[in-house]
Amino acid sequence: MRDVAIIGVSQTKFGELWDISFRDLVTEAGLKAVADADIEGAEIEAMFVGNMTAGLFVQQEHIASLIADHAGLTPMPCTRVEAACASGGLALRSGIMAVASGYHDIVISAGVEKMTDVVDPTPAIATASDQEWEAQQGVTFPSLYAMIAKRHMHQYGTTREQLAMFSVINHKNGALNPLAQFPMEITVDQVLNSSRVADPLRLLDCSPVTDGAAAVILCPAEDARKYTDTPIYVKASAQASGTIALHDRRDITTIDSSVHAARTAYDMAGLEPKDIQAVEVHDCFSINGLLAIEDLGFVEKGQAGPAVEDGITQRDGKIPVNPSGGLKSRGHPLGATGIAQTAEMVWQLRGEAGKRQIDGIEVGMTHNIGGTGGTAAVHIFGR
Amino acid sequence: MRDVAIIGVSQTKFGELWDISFRDLVTEAGLKAVADADIEGAEIEAMFVGNMTAGLFVQQEHIASLIADHAGLTPMPCTRVEAACASGGLALRSGIMAVASGYHDIVISAGVEKMTDVVDPTPAIATASDQEWEAQQGVTFPSLYAMIAKRHMHQYGTTREQLAMFSVINHKNGALNPLAQFPMEITVDQVLNSSRVADPLRLLDCSPVTDGAAAVILCPAEDARKYTDTPIYVKASAQASGTIALHDRRDITTIDSSVHAARTAYDMAGLEPKDIQAVEVHDCFSINGLLAIEDLGFVEKGQAGPAVEDGITQRDGKIPVNPSGGLKSRGHPLGATGIAQTAEMVWQLRGEAGKRQIDGIEVGMTHNIGGTGGTAAVHIFGR
Repeated sequence: MRDVAIIGVSQTKFGELWDISFRDLVTEAGLKAVADADIEGAEIEAMFVGNMTAGLFVQQEHIASLIADHAGLTPMPCTRVEAACASGGLALRSGIMAVASGYHDIVISAGVEKMTDVVDPTPAIATASDQEWEAQQGVTFPSLYAMIAKRHMHQYGTTREQLAMFSVINHKNGALNPLAQFPMEITVDQVLNSSRVADPLRLLDCSPVTDGAAAVILCPAEDARKYTDTPIYVKASAQASGTIALHDRRDITTIDSSVHAARTAYDMAGLEPKDIQAVEVHDCFSINGLLAIEDLGFVEKGQAGPAVEDGITQRDGKIPVNPSGGLKSRGHPLGATGIAQTAEMVWQLRGEAGKRQIDGIEVGMTHNIGGTGGTAAVHIFGR
Repeated sequence: MRDVAIIGVSQTKFGELWDISFRDLVTEAGLKAVADADIEGAEIEAMFVGNMTAGLFVQQEHIASLIADHAGLTPMPCTRVEAACASGGLALRSGIMAVASGYHDIVISAGVEKMTDVVDPTPAIATASDQEWEAQQGVTFPSLYAMIAKRHMHQYGTTREQLAMFSVINHKNGALNPLAQFPMEITVDQVLNSSRVADPLRLLDCSPVTDGAAAVILCPAEDARKYTDTPIYVKASAQASGTIALHDRRDITTIDSSVHAARTAYDMAGLEPKDIQAVEVHDCFSINGLLAIEDLGFVEKGQAGPAVEDGITQRDGKIPVNPSGGLKSRGHPLGATGIAQTAEMVWQLRGEAGKRQIDGIEVGMTHNIGGTGGTAAVHIFGR
């Protein structure tokens, strides 16, 4: 198995991008990544693109071909991978396997979602849950995560304020990220007084509806220094599945797929949670940010609330979480999120994260999940 | 790069399967493949599943997680890949890269589509074309392929009867395939007198709307004989992209992605067209079967019509095409087709194809395309 390195990354501005089409959006991310890697587009040998549901959002499947065509990359092999909100993480992993296998040398893994071209994205997003047992009964994602939050509060004494604090810290970081959809600070009071979405979750506990794209360029680790002085190495690429529906789980306060993927990733990298110096977690809702830091092993199960309150997830804390602003502040274009997380971690490891830079980190992690944890992808990167 | 072998295959009955759900259908294919490989489900380390648009057909994305859950395979990593009607071919290729890379040893690549749960599948199928330049203008797939057929007839003198002959030969083979959707013989007259769909294409030039699933089990070539006395080896796995829309092509009578993928496949395998002893081609419409045998190099460009008329594509001809019955007779559950083609070729190479067996073949090819050739996957297999 060949080791793999990252030589270029990009992210478009995230937001309500009504004046840019799906195909232009992802092409912009690709061009920026190519420029970042300082290569020619023609050097790329294959593309993998993560996208959850262009079929439902913009009536377009077969998007990898569309992108290859629009970006002038034909006849390059291009493949779409989908795992709901973890589509980006799996596009990255597919790209890594393509390089590791020797099938391709330089590979681009991208992610894209255009969510604001429909009146109501809720039915499309609900297709990430179990259609027969959840979506068709009227359950939506805020309500699924609300059930998880209620149970976590009941079981571990997690408070409404601790949930709010997770959003507040995200926005504190995101305020320093010019590519974020909502780059402004918020307060605990603002979260607690925002509209109720699904009790106990309020509007400012929820990641927004976002258009956006991101891309990562991969090559064999042994070649990386030909292209850049600051290659970032893939130390682990892990993935796991869980039950798609909540009702079949042994415990809805733990996302088993995150636990499994993290365990596999730590084993691959020969590292432990204490070795991780920054992490981008999948906080589609504030409660999911709390679950993540427990499931990835940074705190004991049930202890995320107090840990966040104590400030350990701040940029200068023991385990900085979501320096980018996370899904809450940076935005959450479903299929692009896993790749945007990777771009942020690469910028952090290169020391190029501007005002939100965490000092001198050597090892970082990304955590991307689909649905309520039917899929989880965990990656570890190092300088 | 590790070489890869196939140790198990399966296909469900193809047809209008109203009394089986999406999740049961693909699980049935998986269980049959596991039985065929004579392994335990728990030995499988990863799954890739090709599906074009469960989002539009059954309102379910995130299907790899759904399948892992329903089939009891969690926490195994499961990934959906999509490239319209080439989704199955790409799921196979992703599985091959996963094994070749060393990331996983035993991998299942499946394909599934449940098309008959909607009143009209046409809008969903049209998302494989360019939404802005084709689908939104009212163009559908029969009309796109009708334009190709018209041009091929004009440019090369291909006759209406030669197109019909392709369907007739498919059905002659498919009549011997108990898993085919339409296992009966048809005549040239029947094709010529069937309802007009998009001139010059008639109903019996068109592959049907089909529910179905298929699966393939892969392992490192060096381990294959531990599992079976008849391993089939992957000699080449190639993929290419073309323009998604027809209007941008240099010539609509050639599918460049097929040409590129075939060229790559021949190079990888160190073989030439004359070495291929049977081929499963992507005949979503009769004209596409003709293009395929030209683009794959079995006859000169423009000569497919006379070649089919001369009988070279019959099971006892120079290059037997679609011993399974092809998309026309076996049926075409979009995301399952590339895997079903593989299953057929494995049965042929093992000598297990029953009444439709081609005698003593050693090397076979599969050709799976998405849309009008925005994606093509070509695989070569050998004993």
